[in-house]
Amino acid sequence: MGRIADQQKDFPQWYLDVIAEAGLAEHAEVKGCIIFKPYGYALWERIQQDLDRRIKALGVQNAYFPLFIPESVIAKEKDHIEGFAPECAVVTHGGGKELAEKLYVRPTSETIIYTTFAKWVQSYRDLPLKINQWANVVRWEMRTRPFLRTLEFLWQEGHTCHATKEDADAMVNAALQMYVDFDREFLAIPVVQGRKPEHEKFAGALYTLSTEALARDGKAIQAGTSHNLGQGFSEAYDVSYLSEQGKAERPWMTSWGLSTRIIGTLIVVHGDEKGLRLPPNIAPIQAVIVPIYKSDEEREKVLEAARTLIAELDGVRVHLDDRDEKSPGFKFNEWEVKGVPIRMEIGPKDLEKKQAILARRDTSEKAPMPLKDIAKAVPKLLAEVQATLLAQAEEYVKTHTHTAKSMDELKSIIEADGGFVWAPWDGTGATANRVKEETKATIRIVGSEEDAKGKNDICSGAPAVTMALYAKAY
Amino acid sequence: MGRIADQQKDFPQWYLDVIAEAGLAEHAEVKGCIIFKPYGYALWERIQQDLDRRIKALGVQNAYFPLFIPESVIAKEKDHIEGFAPECAVVTHGGGKELAEKLYVRPTSETIIYTTFAKWVQSYRDLPLKINQWANVVRWEMRTRPFLRTLEFLWQEGHTCHATKEDADAMVNAALQMYVDFDREFLAIPVVQGRKPEHEKFAGALYTLSTEALARDGKAIQAGTSHNLGQGFSEAYDVSYLSEQGKAERPWMTSWGLSTRIIGTLIVVHGDEKGLRLPPNIAPIQAVIVPIYKSDEEREKVLEAARTLIAELDGVRVHLDDRDEKSPGFKFNEWEVKGVPIRMEIGPKDLEKKQAILARRDTSEKAPMPLKDIAKAVPKLLAEVQATLLAQAEEYVKTHTHTAKSMDELKSIIEADGGFVWAPWDGTGATANRVKEETKATIRIVGSEEDAKGKNDICSGAPAVTMALYAKAY
Repeated sequence: MGRIADQQKDFPQWYLDVIAEAGLAEHAEVKGCIIFKPYGYALWERIQQDLDRRIKALGVQNAYFPLFIPESVIAKEKDHIEGFAPECAVVTHGGGKELAEKLYVRPTSETIIYTTFAKWVQSYRDLPLKINQWANVVRWEMRTRPFLRTLEFLWQEGHTCHATKEDADAMVNAALQMYVDFDREFLAIPVVQGRKPEHEKFAGALYTLSTEALARDGKAIQAGTSHNLGQGFSEAYDVSYLSEQGKAERPWMTSWGLSTRIIGTLIVVHGDEKGLRLPPNIAPIQAVIVPIYKSDEEREKVLEAARTLIAELDGVRVHLDDRDEKSPGFKFNEWEVKGVPIRMEIGPKDLEKKQAILARRDTSEKAPMPLKDIAKAVPKLLAEVQATLLAQAEEYVKTHTHTAKSMDELKSIIEADGGFVWAPWDGTGATANRVKEETKATIRIVGSEEDAKGKNDICSGAPAVTMALYAKAY
Repeated sequence: MGRIADQQKDFPQWYLDVIAEAGLAEHAEVKGCIIFKPYGYALWERIQQDLDRRIKALGVQNAYFPLFIPESVIAKEKDHIEGFAPECAVVTHGGGKELAEKLYVRPTSETIIYTTFAKWVQSYRDLPLKINQWANVVRWEMRTRPFLRTLEFLWQEGHTCHATKEDADAMVNAALQMYVDFDREFLAIPVVQGRKPEHEKFAGALYTLSTEALARDGKAIQAGTSHNLGQGFSEAYDVSYLSEQGKAERPWMTSWGLSTRIIGTLIVVHGDEKGLRLPPNIAPIQAVIVPIYKSDEEREKVLEAARTLIAELDGVRVHLDDRDEKSPGFKFNEWEVKGVPIRMEIGPKDLEKKQAILARRDTSEKAPMPLKDIAKAVPKLLAEVQATLLAQAEEYVKTHTHTAKSMDELKSIIEADGGFVWAPWDGTGATANRVKEETKATIRIVGSEEDAKGKNDICSGAPAVTMALYAKAY
């Protein structure tokens, strides 16, 4: 194993080291793309499983739409194409010939999906229409970082179509709440949620809701977004339906997505100086058994005890690390870097005492436990680890959320140890830009209008219209 | 609902009609691509679930590799690039600029994966290395058909790396056997299996094994292939390992895949004049309840009985079709086209008799059953439907497998009602080509060398070296 950079001193390098040492991903031949190694992809598989269940519980059906979008189709919604065209990969040749029309590799699928919705939606009876797809998308990025920002990434994108703005609002909120619950329950990640300011909304949307987590370096990071697209895409893609009264109406669209970026979020929220720390709900391996032996005879006995334990730990994802060529010390390190919630050590002396040593990854606590108690104790212990990681992350957010009354205060907080900073805002993009230039902090979400009453913007001095949550962001 | 063409008279149109009427897929804006509608995608989801379990049982781990392959990478294996280059979509522009190096959209991922294997494989301890990916791939096709041949399709591709030819042979066989079992157990599709003739093998492979099913129009169709790639890719991508003796060695590669084409196979093997017939194991809906009522009062009672039934049918995928705006007759048709294995009808008269009418999609049998018996009977009935569909398909293969002693015989069988035809073959591509020109039949797999001894090729008259299985193919 290599060494991992100091998390306190060089967080960006620490991040790259953890990904490499934990075997999550590596750079690909194509600049900006990554290879999801088995352990990294296993995280995505578990995310898919859990989130897919939640998506279906909202009455959404999965489907699959093409990778390629003809130029004439993607160009129909003006704001959308302006926002995305510079980021697109373009296919100009196929089957050995130059194409008559360029094909865009999807950066997101609103345009191709809404072209289809125009066929699927005819009557009010067809609404709401709720579709989701799991897919790869491509956005040309110059400065990439594994998981957090890559040229190609994997995601789910939900697309729905509703009769009224109220129905669309309800869907946008339900999707956001789904991400909040998923982040919290499955990933042990607490998030703040709210509306993005106008200048940060999705290209072509009416408004965007976002969940924002806080990384251990004090930077904000999105963990699921949900957009009310209004009727703009319905207009552009000519989607209409006959109402119960027989009138042609434009439906309201929503879209919402969560990508493999969430794996990066998981790392920066829970990781510590030793590497990854995985919440048990997502952990591909929840408990690892490291047998300790010197002679063949000891090996036999210890492995037998380990196998008995595994048989008893039905329903727990246990792995027995029986590699002879690696020392126990090496294995301890490796499974710590990989963030496995519980490690069990069994050696000849433990067998004599009919015990194993249990080590928790979250707290680094280590204690012996009678073998006969382990099967019952481990599921409880996993629940405890899950709860502890959430509590630790919540504590971090709590101690790193401030309110600033002046630019100086905002600056000093952001420079000191980052975090979320609430401040009154005058609601203009110009002011937000000035704050960004001076502090590198951007508005993650807007907050209470009530709390901003009578206050002035900390930057412009103009009357504030709302509170805004500032943070440096990924 | 529209009408479905006569399966006997116009099989190709019947196929397209079934896909449209069952709501499986539709054409996309991009020529040659399809949109997987929810019911069609649900088939793929169920296939993924079952096959993924089997893949993992072979000790294979999932990973994910980039969509784009730089030209310099794909071009390294000469036979491979010659085979695939004319089929590729090529990205020439990204992020608003012309790229210095063209990117190929993966038609298959040997080249990008083996470039990575060169890093992952260092020592004999790293072998075998067994990786699978679920992905979309693109092959430029001029004549496309939904599921069977599309520009973009979804698949899994397994890629493994072994120390010896024997290990690679064993893997190739294990993967093929996995497909055979999956086809048979999950899809109720019987297949013949064997080696492809030299001129039909995968570009760059040592040899290719294939499973071949028989469609109801007498044409053969692949249902999973497995390739021993030999050491050619190891050479081209410079993969090597240090043996236990400390010597640098070239490993042996295999690759194997199954795609969304299998959904087309499912349709053409089991479909009948009324539409799709789904084996219960894959069916997203295993049983549908169609309530029959006229008054609101009847509606209440019948729906209540239906909901009680659903609660009792725990573990069965049941759907209650409670749409008021559609007639029972319409619903019967729709669920027949969609191939749902069991339909249950409950009307006021049935309630009086404490019964429901059960209709089987496989045999079209229809009979009343006491409500109290249904929960116990349905799982058994589903198993019966699964077995019956397999038996019917096996019977079809049996009655459509012949042996030809002459070209005339081969021709007349192929022209009459198609099917598999065994014939002695001289082993040359030239002869296979002549047979193809005269009969449109190609060699699907080669068979027994023993059985060919002393016989002459039916086309060239030269001494036969093996039996070959001819068929017209998709």
